[in-house]
Amino acid sequence: MKLLLVFLVVAIATAASHATNDYHVIRRVVPNSGLSHSGSAKTKCLSWRLAVETYNLRDWKLVPAECISYIGNYMMGKQHGQDCTAAADAAFAYAKTINLTGDGKDAWVLDIDQTALSLLDYYARPDVQFGGILYNDTRFEEWLAQGTAAATPAVLDLYNKLKSIGFKIVFISGTSETQRDIRIANLNKAGYYNWEKLLLKSESEHGTTAQVYKTNKRTKLVGEGYRIHGNMGDQWSDLIGPNNGDRTFKLPNPMFFIP
Amino acid sequence: MKLLLVFLVVAIATAASHATNDYHVIRRVVPNSGLSHSGSAKTKCLSWRLAVETYNLRDWKLVPAECISYIGNYMMGKQHGQDCTAAADAAFAYAKTINLTGDGKDAWVLDIDQTALSLLDYYARPDVQFGGILYNDTRFEEWLAQGTAAATPAVLDLYNKLKSIGFKIVFISGTSETQRDIRIANLNKAGYYNWEKLLLKSESEHGTTAQVYKTNKRTKLVGEGYRIHGNMGDQWSDLIGPNNGDRTFKLPNPMFFIP
Repeated sequence: MKLLLVFLVVAIATAASHATNDYHVIRRVVPNSGLSHSGSAKTKCLSWRLAVETYNLRDWKLVPAECISYIGNYMMGKQHGQDCTAAADAAFAYAKTINLTGDGKDAWVLDIDQTALSLLDYYARPDVQFGGILYNDTRFEEWLAQGTAAATPAVLDLYNKLKSIGFKIVFISGTSETQRDIRIANLNKAGYYNWEKLLLKSESEHGTTAQVYKTNKRTKLVGEGYRIHGNMGDQWSDLIGPNNGDRTFKLPNPMFFIP
Repeated sequence: MKLLLVFLVVAIATAASHATNDYHVIRRVVPNSGLSHSGSAKTKCLSWRLAVETYNLRDWKLVPAECISYIGNYMMGKQHGQDCTAAADAAFAYAKTINLTGDGKDAWVLDIDQTALSLLDYYARPDVQFGGILYNDTRFEEWLAQGTAAATPAVLDLYNKLKSIGFKIVFISGTSETQRDIRIANLNKAGYYNWEKLLLKSESEHGTTAQVYKTNKRTKLVGEGYRIHGNMGDQWSDLIGPNNGDRTFKLPNPMFFIP
């Protein structure tokens, strides 16, 4: 069993180091790892993923052990990218129906982590296993501090298109204010420029849930005269609560849950 | 092209008349119909379904033509049943965490159509095609008036388990009050007995959206002292708005959208 685990970790590490959206690599790992998908496991894990995405499941801590390889395949394969594209397409189709005023107050709220920026390079690591291993704050913060997160392609494309028709982009992130320079550098490196606001968590806001924190930020925005037409994030805590925007767009994320 | 369409309708009719949750029948139809799933169509239709379930897409009228056979397979196959079971399991896991007071005011709200009762016998018809053909109110009401809708197995099971631990079930449905006897007979026939309330649409409530109507009903319930711990439906209009319950549970429904 221990040997199997070592093999699995090495195999996933090898896969992760080579793979960029190549689900064949992960697929190759799976049959050898003892975690192959029976039809029934695939059906169950797809149901689990749907329950997560529809907010039926809340406050979960770990991807179920039997779904780790399924989620790995999903994230590294075509489906996740296509799901993000479908969300971005729905968002832009809606955005185009809005008559913008031209007063600079037509806003679109975007989350950063696992929305504008992908955390997949981190989550594919053998010590993270797509959320199958318990979240480690220190390790994650260390990775984030490198500022190397790539863009989520569909979201970067949406960002540019929203700006091109006159929306003001407001990033709201739970990242600490002390990391502002790092986050800006990462966003720029990934291709994001010229946003309206980048709202981060001040010292006094630490300890509040993402949902409360983000609601407060949006409420302040509305108080400043902004109209939040759209709001996109990978967590329901980005999307629910007062002033959540005329339309919300949920990006898929079966790897972690933030309340 | 016309011949192909005639064949498709006949083939689906044949399949629908024989099939009860037998997705092999539908599968057999598909390759002959010219609507076979390429990998790319399957990926796209799964993305479309996810966008529907996460409320990214709203006010849609039709299942996209290229996804009709995919949705048919999904609804008639194992995945839909498993997705309903996953939602019901999540609901009951939550229900068990609640300390019931014993005052008879611990309520659970359930939608009826495509929640407690399945509409699949209707939606699998060749003149409905799983939502691929535009909704026809007359035909649907005629079918509903027969009172032959089967239970959604996972929801009937949840219903009985919720009652067994002391929840009071409140059905809220957009059906007209004039159909009360028919709905009660259908619910009984499907195995539902001894609910707390069955709330239907009165004459004066016609013309309001499901979301407003259901919110009003829930608000009245809360006014009567009920605590809405859980709320399950297949539409987001069942689940959003004030007094929507401490937890909501979205059942999958890629066949129609009700605002």
